[in-house]
Amino acid sequence: FAKVKPVFSLKNFIHVTLLSPAAERLRHILREEDEPTPTLFTEMDTLQHEGGEMEWKESARWVKFEEKVEEGGERWSKPHVSTLSLHSLFELRTCLQTGCILLDLEGYSLPQIVDDIIEKQVQDGLIAPEIREKISFVLLRKHRHQTKKPIHRSLNSPSFSGTYPSQCRSMNDISVTPSTDQLKNKFMKKIPRDAEASNVLIGEVDFLDKPFVAFVRLAQAATLGGLTEVPVPTRFLFVLLGPNGKAKSYNEIGRAMATLMVDDLFSDVAYKARDREDLIAGIDEFLDEVIVLPPGEWDPKIRIEPPKKLPSAEMRKSVFSLNELGQPNGNAGGGAASAEDEEIFCGGLWLDIKRKVPWFLSDFYEGFHIQSVSAVLFIYLGCITNAITFGGLLGDATDNYQGVMESFLGTALAGVVFCLFGGQPLIILSSTGPILIFEKLLNNDIDYMEIRLWIGLHSCLQCLILVATDASYIIKYMTRFTEEGFSSLISFIFISDALKKMMSIFNYYPINRDFKPDYITSYRCDCQAPDQGESDPDPTRLNLRQFNFSALDWNQLSKKECLWFGGSLVGKSCKYVPDLAMLSFILFFGTYSMTISLKKFKASRYFPTKCRTFILRKLISDFAIFMSIMTFVGLDMLMGLKTPKLIVPTEFKPTRPDRGWIVMPFGKNPWWMCLASFVPALLVTILIFMDQQITAVIVNRKENKLKKGCGYHLDLFWVGILMAICSFMGLPWYVAATVISIAHIDSLKMESESSAPGEQPQFLGVREQRLTGVLVFVLTGVSVFLAPILQYIPMPVLYGVFLYMGVASLHGIQFWERMKLFLMPAKHQPDFVFLRHVPLRRVHLFTLVQITCLAVLWILKSTMAAIIFPVMILGLMVVRKMLDLIFSQHDLAWLDDILPDKDKKRKEDEKKKKEKKKAGKSEEHNNSDEEVSLDF
Amino acid sequence: FAKVKPVFSLKNFIHVTLLSPAAERLRHILREEDEPTPTLFTEMDTLQHEGGEMEWKESARWVKFEEKVEEGGERWSKPHVSTLSLHSLFELRTCLQTGCILLDLEGYSLPQIVDDIIEKQVQDGLIAPEIREKISFVLLRKHRHQTKKPIHRSLNSPSFSGTYPSQCRSMNDISVTPSTDQLKNKFMKKIPRDAEASNVLIGEVDFLDKPFVAFVRLAQAATLGGLTEVPVPTRFLFVLLGPNGKAKSYNEIGRAMATLMVDDLFSDVAYKARDREDLIAGIDEFLDEVIVLPPGEWDPKIRIEPPKKLPSAEMRKSVFSLNELGQPNGNAGGGAASAEDEEIFCGGLWLDIKRKVPWFLSDFYEGFHIQSVSAVLFIYLGCITNAITFGGLLGDATDNYQGVMESFLGTALAGVVFCLFGGQPLIILSSTGPILIFEKLLNNDIDYMEIRLWIGLHSCLQCLILVATDASYIIKYMTRFTEEGFSSLISFIFISDALKKMMSIFNYYPINRDFKPDYITSYRCDCQAPDQGESDPDPTRLNLRQFNFSALDWNQLSKKECLWFGGSLVGKSCKYVPDLAMLSFILFFGTYSMTISLKKFKASRYFPTKCRTFILRKLISDFAIFMSIMTFVGLDMLMGLKTPKLIVPTEFKPTRPDRGWIVMPFGKNPWWMCLASFVPALLVTILIFMDQQITAVIVNRKENKLKKGCGYHLDLFWVGILMAICSFMGLPWYVAATVISIAHIDSLKMESESSAPGEQPQFLGVREQRLTGVLVFVLTGVSVFLAPILQYIPMPVLYGVFLYMGVASLHGIQFWERMKLFLMPAKHQPDFVFLRHVPLRRVHLFTLVQITCLAVLWILKSTMAAIIFPVMILGLMVVRKMLDLIFSQHDLAWLDDILPDKDKKRKEDEKKKKEKKKAGKSEEHNNSDEEVSLDF
Repeated sequence: FAKVKPVFSLKNFIHVTLLSPAAERLRHILREEDEPTPTLFTEMDTLQHEGGEMEWKESARWVKFEEKVEEGGERWSKPHVSTLSLHSLFELRTCLQTGCILLDLEGYSLPQIVDDIIEKQVQDGLIAPEIREKISFVLLRKHRHQTKKPIHRSLNSPSFSGTYPSQCRSMNDISVTPSTDQLKNKFMKKIPRDAEASNVLIGEVDFLDKPFVAFVRLAQAATLGGLTEVPVPTRFLFVLLGPNGKAKSYNEIGRAMATLMVDDLFSDVAYKARDREDLIAGIDEFLDEVIVLPPGEWDPKIRIEPPKKLPSAEMRKSVFSLNELGQPNGNAGGGAASAEDEEIFCGGLWLDIKRKVPWFLSDFYEGFHIQSVSAVLFIYLGCITNAITFGGLLGDATDNYQGVMESFLGTALAGVVFCLFGGQPLIILSSTGPILIFEKLLNNDIDYMEIRLWIGLHSCLQCLILVATDASYIIKYMTRFTEEGFSSLISFIFISDALKKMMSIFNYYPINRDFKPDYITSYRCDCQAPDQGESDPDPTRLNLRQFNFSALDWNQLSKKECLWFGGSLVGKSCKYVPDLAMLSFILFFGTYSMTISLKKFKASRYFPTKCRTFILRKLISDFAIFMSIMTFVGLDMLMGLKTPKLIVPTEFKPTRPDRGWIVMPFGKNPWWMCLASFVPALLVTILIFMDQQITAVIVNRKENKLKKGCGYHLDLFWVGILMAICSFMGLPWYVAATVISIAHIDSLKMESESSAPGEQPQFLGVREQRLTGVLVFVLTGVSVFLAPILQYIPMPVLYGVFLYMGVASLHGIQFWERMKLFLMPAKHQPDFVFLRHVPLRRVHLFTLVQITCLAVLWILKSTMAAIIFPVMILGLMVVRKMLDLIFSQHDLAWLDDILPDKDKKRKEDEKKKKEKKKAGKSEEHNNSDEEVSLDF
Repeated sequence: FAKVKPVFSLKNFIHVTLLSPAAERLRHILREEDEPTPTLFTEMDTLQHEGGEMEWKESARWVKFEEKVEEGGERWSKPHVSTLSLHSLFELRTCLQTGCILLDLEGYSLPQIVDDIIEKQVQDGLIAPEIREKISFVLLRKHRHQTKKPIHRSLNSPSFSGTYPSQCRSMNDISVTPSTDQLKNKFMKKIPRDAEASNVLIGEVDFLDKPFVAFVRLAQAATLGGLTEVPVPTRFLFVLLGPNGKAKSYNEIGRAMATLMVDDLFSDVAYKARDREDLIAGIDEFLDEVIVLPPGEWDPKIRIEPPKKLPSAEMRKSVFSLNELGQPNGNAGGGAASAEDEEIFCGGLWLDIKRKVPWFLSDFYEGFHIQSVSAVLFIYLGCITNAITFGGLLGDATDNYQGVMESFLGTALAGVVFCLFGGQPLIILSSTGPILIFEKLLNNDIDYMEIRLWIGLHSCLQCLILVATDASYIIKYMTRFTEEGFSSLISFIFISDALKKMMSIFNYYPINRDFKPDYITSYRCDCQAPDQGESDPDPTRLNLRQFNFSALDWNQLSKKECLWFGGSLVGKSCKYVPDLAMLSFILFFGTYSMTISLKKFKASRYFPTKCRTFILRKLISDFAIFMSIMTFVGLDMLMGLKTPKLIVPTEFKPTRPDRGWIVMPFGKNPWWMCLASFVPALLVTILIFMDQQITAVIVNRKENKLKKGCGYHLDLFWVGILMAICSFMGLPWYVAATVISIAHIDSLKMESESSAPGEQPQFLGVREQRLTGVLVFVLTGVSVFLAPILQYIPMPVLYGVFLYMGVASLHGIQFWERMKLFLMPAKHQPDFVFLRHVPLRRVHLFTLVQITCLAVLWILKSTMAAIIFPVMILGLMVVRKMLDLIFSQHDLAWLDDILPDKDKKRKEDEKKKKEKKKAGKSEEHNNSDEEVSLDF
């Protein structure tokens, strides 16, 4: 390898200038602020000798990554990173140094271009004039592309003998217009619309004794017949013909050229180069940036999969443009957000509205997508299950003043209004635990509905005051610590509730554990007539006394009838219900595990359809929950057992016959109650405010990439108004439900389809719109009419869905990842960025603090203190504040980096970066000092 | 980047010599056949200025891959491939060109070495004599290593002010003996015993105006105090000190040097270099081999995980040694096998024994390993489940002449003998389906046991003849096609049997689907007294007639008693058994899924123990089945329901009281029967021969990396002998059980622990020994005494284990992978090597042929023709032979490449390679011709 003799001296490298001469040259050509150059599609064809014939056969192509033709397999390889040898790059460099360079050639057809190239070479004395014809003949052979079906020799143009004809007659195999094969090629979809092609032609011939090299840039891109696989006009042409025997080496040079052509920076250089030296400078700059893998640590045969993320071309180019390095363009949404965030804390409601109105129309038409259907079905089932559960519990707590019917109606009403006009329509409103406890406490001997109305009105007023005073400013203090802590806790509660509900089925349908199949004869349950002399304590049954008991065939009575008539059930099997609990468990666990498996399906490779398999797999993932529900509903129907089903009310009337749909504000309670209810209202307000805003913070997480901005004030405004309306109508109160809102967002996530082969699909954001939410709640409203369908859905299936929701909402939470670190030995821990910058024991300490907080909250929640549960979030924020005393700002920046206020964060980051550079070392000192004081 | 000006001309690159000048040089120094150089451990320390103090801090280390110190995280990064910049490599090259090179320096302590370096530099005029002291001071600063606990400044040697003292007093921070920290360092385990260290020291100082570079090789490796993290003697020292401001660049140069030092080839060069030019040649050679990633397709920040496989250093070095490139040494096992394989087909039994005897002792002591325990438990449970199932079926088929007891005894006897003396002790013998069908057919009015004895004797004789005539030669024709086809089919049968058994539980314990909890009162099952006048058909119950029926309280009778007394069961619940079927399903499916999940656990990261976590995870994977069984046995006990349990015989006596343990050969049948039984015996022999040998082929698969060779003849010999013995004792006949044998092998797989950080564990082979087999069958023999324990194991759990066995034995079968290809769109298919070389439609065609064959076999198997099932394997082999007509040898080589005869294959491979080179193109022509003739 002594061929490479880098001649740069030690002096040279020490007193290195900021920009090398090559870079200086490039800065000169790249600095002009003209429009971006087109994307290049590169195709490499190699010359094949088959019998007496020659043809060009496609051997690889590049959009961004390399796809190779698998010779034997007659297929395209997977896109992979082009691994080159340094050797081939240097050889290419030499080629460009010595070969023929034609820039801005006026070319319209391949024969003419070939003629021009050869003419130039002859002029330069690079080739002998007598091989002119032969070269031209070779370069004009037909091009065979790797299309779906292999093109067989027998289908080619009629073969002719004689190697290099001296006449021009059959010189030209190249057609002028694009072939149908070209036009039909579906690969076109993967190439950007404005792309141009660069063609690399590599071949061995027997009449040359030294290589024939040409690099051509056309003045205008031109479609050169069947040269390229796809009908993309060619701009660049690189030809390397050489003497026999070095095919492999030529091939590598061709790959190096092709790789250079698709390099963002070099393709720019190629478009703008003024002369040979510019191109060489381009290669040198490329060489300066290449990443080198040592031969002993990597096998060159491994095809490297395209990375998930790439450094942006902008960043690489920015070195050469004179403007400041920072601020890459794009990110317009971010800019908008920056304006917004300032407004949140000073403008309030008005600015929320101003921000939301422009999107209002798109909030509807953007909802028209198949994904919305699955989201609606999923969230609808979640909502009605919640409505039924809370409805039942509320009914118990309030003597049926608010029952299942009220719960449905309230959910529908509040949901529709909020999703239509709220600031963050992705939030799903629902009854929550603390509210339930509050109602339970409230229901004393006072007139319940009236006092509740007053509390609601006060609370509404307080909410409006909070809106007016921009109190939502407080969310600024809800960092990742608070937010993740809260959402984890809610998720845990969700999971534990789902499990508890499942377990309650085991209590409701007890299993006879002592059952011995052989003693089946001893298991029975008889209805025994009551002792006639015994007095019946139930007055409603008094009239039954007249009934002729002896005429009653007690043995024919069902369990319910028997008990109703005052009989008692005697027998070994009375307490037990066979199979139902077991089947329920199978349904519960089956739904959960099937959903989890199907969700993972997106990442798998299966599915036989030819086109848009990605979409199909996405669909399967989107409809995972629906498919699981259907499967297990089907299984349940197949088994035909009487598992507990989803029973919704079928008639539209208040649960309690003695109440109407409107609650009157006065009359039943003393007048001072109207004022006194201000105090409990305060509690409700705090409760609602905290619950609502932290859910909004979670929904607005940076990771969700929301584009339409947030609307904390507007949200609170509507929650307040709905408080009042619900109170008037005697419906439950509603506030944002964390887990269901997260599920809503998860079911609306969008991913880009990969464009260039090998590029990874990127998470684009969430389908932000109001349609799904509105539909969910409209459906909830008309559930009364859907009852005949809904009754087929077994409750355990829905509990399985709830379990899934709880588990899924833990996904991607850093806190959860940090918890898992406890279980891993250090060397197996994933390469989280915070682990690179914060010592493990500090990470663990931080996690432990969080766990402790959650444990305390969990305990509080399990007692009646649950009512002040949302207030505890304030506690979390205080704890977070105190962490500043224990942890350095450096550590906290890595562990607790996300403030809801995105732009403020960005500014801080920039500041921090600067500071870090300065204070890097001194901070490290502080750090280690701290540790000393802690450890010793 | 114009600093790099590779000056090699186009001419140069065309007329390239086989070896470049650099390579020529290296060939000169590397060609000597002396002993291999030690492995190098490289540590890079950078100079840190903290306040007024300076110290060297470890920043990275290399055994094979790079581990970086995460500054903030105070931890080691994961081992990764060192990605270098080309720039730094060229800068390093320049450093070595201009710096000070000291080869074979006599050095015993760091101060002396430092003095020598400085002296040389002063002599060469590279540094001014007046900074001598300063450099010496810097180089002798203390070294702080990245150990578990951070060493704090306060614990360091007392700080002193004044930057560079002119006196020699406190010059030396370096201790002479290794510190306890060094000695206690557990990392030592990861470094090969004979390793030597190379130290790279990189620093910025303010008194230099140009870099100070030194490369030192010591004549003898010496422990230089606390220089290195581990007490490994230092051989190489690279120092780069430079003026302030270029820390990052120096750092990269240091990384490049360190990476070079751990490169197999360069480290050899470094040990053997005679002068500076040799080192430069080493770098050039390294540069020639590096792999270059284009900057636009890869992010330099990504840490590349170490690859699974690396090109061997031998191959890289072989270019320089004069002997032929091929045949890398090692692979002694392969050589041994080569001798064997020739013998199999000509020597037979004797050679089998000769091959097995030397291993006989190790066959026992190699079994002492914790893994064997799990294997024994797992296979034991499989065997007794099989014994019980087949015992029951055999009992039905043979009027209890052979029942569960005989099945247990036979399994134990045959198994112990075979595992002790057989040729392939990893094979597990068992009853198989075809044998069962044969016995069923045989059991006619003739005296069953006697005729069976004669068939057994004939069959034994025939087996011995097959052994003597080396008939096992036929296995040569069992290619991957036959072998995988057969084993897939057996696996499918296994899976379907497991599911069928599970389903039969649903039939055995029917679920009352019409059960309505409310009508519990109507479900009962009464025992009704028989009509007294009715005649009782059962004579055994005749004496009951005397019994006073009216005294019997029919209601108190159990189901069994009721039926026994002739009563009938009347009632809605009689037919049904609650909960058992459901619980059985939960146990079945739970065991299966838990085993699958735990098996995957090995790949996961969890587990908190500090050392040998790999082992622990391996253990969990090894004991996966055992843990699942225990869990669900526990669940079953917790539920307390009467699920069907594993009931083994508790007394040692023949199932049928009228038979003894020995069958007499004469007396009950006409004499000609003894001769006529020759004909059915022939069928049994073919059946046994095929079943036995194909299982042996599967067990001896190349993928299993067995080292002790095969013993087809010896196997058959013992199977024959056992036939005779079992026939005499009236026990079932035994032959190799495919799925359980595969499970046995799977449970004994060994993996290497990774040595150098980042190296992937490799599959080493199977724990080949006789101990596990013997123990399994001894346990089977004493199961009579284990009955009290075994009765806690529910059958559904064991069916789950069977399901797992069936599914697991499909794992890694190419046929199965090819089947899955049908479901994947081409671009998502995994990168199988055969897909690179064979067109997809040919692959699909091949798979389809296989599927068709299996479907036919499956249908045959479902009819009574199942008895000739093993003969069908011959059919498979014929089909395979016919495939030669449809597929080219090239395609078949890729799709059906494994012949059981390993060495023949290897030779053919070599031949093929040569042919391919020659015939490459012409074969491709043939190929495409063929396709034309097929497609059109």
